[in-house]
Amino acid sequence: MNVGVLGTGFVGQTIGTALVEKGHRVMIGSRMANNEKANAWIEQKENAFAGTFEDAARFADIIFLCINGAFIKETIKEMDSALFAGKIIIDVTNPLDFSKGMPASLLPDYSNRWSLGEEIQQLLPDAYIVKALNTVTARLMVNAELVNEGNHQMCICGNDTVAKNKVKHLLAENFMWKPEFILDMGGIESSRLMEAVVPYWLGVMQVLGTPLFNYQIVK
Amino acid sequence: MNVGVLGTGFVGQTIGTALVEKGHRVMIGSRMANNEKANAWIEQKENAFAGTFEDAARFADIIFLCINGAFIKETIKEMDSALFAGKIIIDVTNPLDFSKGMPASLLPDYSNRWSLGEEIQQLLPDAYIVKALNTVTARLMVNAELVNEGNHQMCICGNDTVAKNKVKHLLAENFMWKPEFILDMGGIESSRLMEAVVPYWLGVMQVLGTPLFNYQIVK
Repeated sequence: MNVGVLGTGFVGQTIGTALVEKGHRVMIGSRMANNEKANAWIEQKENAFAGTFEDAARFADIIFLCINGAFIKETIKEMDSALFAGKIIIDVTNPLDFSKGMPASLLPDYSNRWSLGEEIQQLLPDAYIVKALNTVTARLMVNAELVNEGNHQMCICGNDTVAKNKVKHLLAENFMWKPEFILDMGGIESSRLMEAVVPYWLGVMQVLGTPLFNYQIVK
Repeated sequence: MNVGVLGTGFVGQTIGTALVEKGHRVMIGSRMANNEKANAWIEQKENAFAGTFEDAARFADIIFLCINGAFIKETIKEMDSALFAGKIIIDVTNPLDFSKGMPASLLPDYSNRWSLGEEIQQLLPDAYIVKALNTVTARLMVNAELVNEGNHQMCICGNDTVAKNKVKHLLAENFMWKPEFILDMGGIESSRLMEAVVPYWLGVMQVLGTPLFNYQIVK
């Protein structure tokens, strides 16, 4: 599978590395060509490539969006939306705002009644946006078994059932998420819920003193 | 213990009934005297009383606040704040807004960077507000053992450690919450986090088809 990872931060690099190790071809994309972090990341890796966001989108069968939430809108608007048509975009982003101190809040434009997931779907109407993985720390995203033998929940949402099923399969095959723990929360508007829990997650992380945790729904 | 329960809805009645059954004296308070629901509730119960909000506050050693979130501010402003001075108020309220359809949102005044918990503490600076129980369904609030043998988390927050410890004790003694599963999230500003997860909770409830569930943090 050819995977495009948009964003060269810790989340993008962690996802890219995990997918290369699983045998996929990965292009990590950055705003400008010759990004230092991207160049460092591809060194000594087979099937790892670097390019612009548009290069990575063009290269990809499936795309992970790992850009800082604050810059998503402008970034997508600068790109040719046709590059994303018909492709699945796994949206890992969060609209976090640390500028007001703790507890962290959401960027007001993406809080309560609107979300990044919906914004991205609106900007790229011909792509299949699937919100996933945004509620756990990067290391756990790519290896669910790091916590409680993989027995904990991951919510996903998006407007297209086929796309969601493909993502579910991808998470299970590559990142050890157990399908029975993946909860389909419905359409992309449920991104509001999945993004709104992240400040809470940060609060719990502070109390526990580790980001390596997740929630298991119990009945 | 003399308990005041402010609010005659399902949550208030459920909490009141559970506390009467545990041997406490409970006054359920409503905006106006001679509230029909309150009068029906006290029938055939020993140690159950009805009165106005102010009557219930005056009567109480400890107060449960179970009023519809949308009316909290006006309701508290109408009351004599001295009645609450030095008392613990367990704030069970949520600022939910269903008027925009699903997913449910929060009342904008109490979303992202402000919360009901903080508003109540600001309106009643001499009371000890402890946010608790607002993240589960009423039946589970008063009997944690209904789910997974009581092995699941309850967050609390508030500015006063002694008050929080008393509430923790009360939840353990009366409602079967295991102290080791009660997570102290810090000051009352963490109400923002605890209220923000409730729309997510409603979404999960829709998917699961039952309100009888909760989260267990796994590491």
